[in-house]
Amino acid sequence: MPTAAAIIIGDEILSGKFTDENSPWLITRCKALGIDLRRICTITDGIDDIAETVGRWRSRVDYLFTTGGVGPTHDDLTMTGIAAAFGVPLVRHPELERMLRDKLGERCNDEALRMADVPEGAELWWEGEVRFPQVVVENVCIFPGVPALFQKKFDTVAHRFATSAPRQVRSHITEAAEIDIAAGLRTLAERFPTVQIGSYPQFEVKPWTVKVTLDSRDLSALAAAEAALAAMLSKVQS
Amino acid sequence: MPTAAAIIIGDEILSGKFTDENSPWLITRCKALGIDLRRICTITDGIDDIAETVGRWRSRVDYLFTTGGVGPTHDDLTMTGIAAAFGVPLVRHPELERMLRDKLGERCNDEALRMADVPEGAELWWEGEVRFPQVVVENVCIFPGVPALFQKKFDTVAHRFATSAPRQVRSHITEAAEIDIAAGLRTLAERFPTVQIGSYPQFEVKPWTVKVTLDSRDLSALAAAEAALAAMLSKVQS
Repeated sequence: MPTAAAIIIGDEILSGKFTDENSPWLITRCKALGIDLRRICTITDGIDDIAETVGRWRSRVDYLFTTGGVGPTHDDLTMTGIAAAFGVPLVRHPELERMLRDKLGERCNDEALRMADVPEGAELWWEGEVRFPQVVVENVCIFPGVPALFQKKFDTVAHRFATSAPRQVRSHITEAAEIDIAAGLRTLAERFPTVQIGSYPQFEVKPWTVKVTLDSRDLSALAAAEAALAAMLSKVQS
Repeated sequence: MPTAAAIIIGDEILSGKFTDENSPWLITRCKALGIDLRRICTITDGIDDIAETVGRWRSRVDYLFTTGGVGPTHDDLTMTGIAAAFGVPLVRHPELERMLRDKLGERCNDEALRMADVPEGAELWWEGEVRFPQVVVENVCIFPGVPALFQKKFDTVAHRFATSAPRQVRSHITEAAEIDIAAGLRTLAERFPTVQIGSYPQFEVKPWTVKVTLDSRDLSALAAAEAALAAMLSKVQS
């Protein structure tokens, strides 16, 4: 299963001016695509913050997705930060420049042309019905922050990240307390190392319950773990 | 203004089993309290992940908030990870152990007592009507992941983090394109270094607009920047 991390770039999220719609949407899409999302970093617009975070995560996952900071204004510093992370200069891409000049005509000013500046060595993926190609530096896919644009652009290239063996999840609800099933869960976790076992207490309504989840791509281990869990829970509750 | 970062701990968020309700809530509370939230890291339950992230962020902000991973089950590894970040052992806290034994009576098993294990040197804050004290290691405040519990516990101790000079935000909507105001915004950003200026295109409905935000605790600079922004925008639009 491919791994990924996401960097959500923007002071406007951390300061509460805009709600982050991109993280929840991306989590759902990764789940559907069978991508193991390992980290989400919600960070400021600062060049150093971007460079450091991209530098740390690009080598730890198969795909690193960034959202935000790719427009023409002074607070759009994602390309600069990513260039710094790779130790390469920011260069004006001739294809992007031509595209912007064609599209904007005499409105194409210096500020607009900043959108043609990408880290040296960046690739352009020209697929789908998008007005602007997908900019990619090695395994870092650079997406816009505006949710509708991000979603459209991500889905245009998502087939590149998908896998044929997505994770399956089973869940069981029990009224037993966590402290009374913890030892049993620990034993299960040791017995089925390919199955991830989660335990989540629910205090919203009484009776309080615990949701136990089993999570794996190994379907025979998942079935065996599920049977063992059911046996353990019925023993605790009886 | 005090700075903070948050670490949202839990595979269940990244894998899409549960929606992260804690980040949006915390962003809103930090805004109201005048806390400058610098980073949110949404991470796995892994001890190494917790230790590394806590280790990196604790020295960079005034307060580091963690949520999740503090129950009695095998996937609750936050205390272990934080102990590793500080290079101290996990120790059984006598006060917490006594409290758990009193509360649970003969149901108090080894698994339950894991909730009395904290990094050596941890402080307990016993304020408010909470059943369990707030565990704090230096500037790291360790909260539960269940949203209702997190919110209650955070609000119980929030007065410790609040400041008397919260940030103020002004916003202006313009139908001008970002490329036509970018140069003007850059000049404003240079002229008013204590005011953060953000520019956010809105593509949901036509006519497309740009929301420009001004953000500062320096109220006289904010007023001056707002007047300059209004003059700039009316010049562009006319």
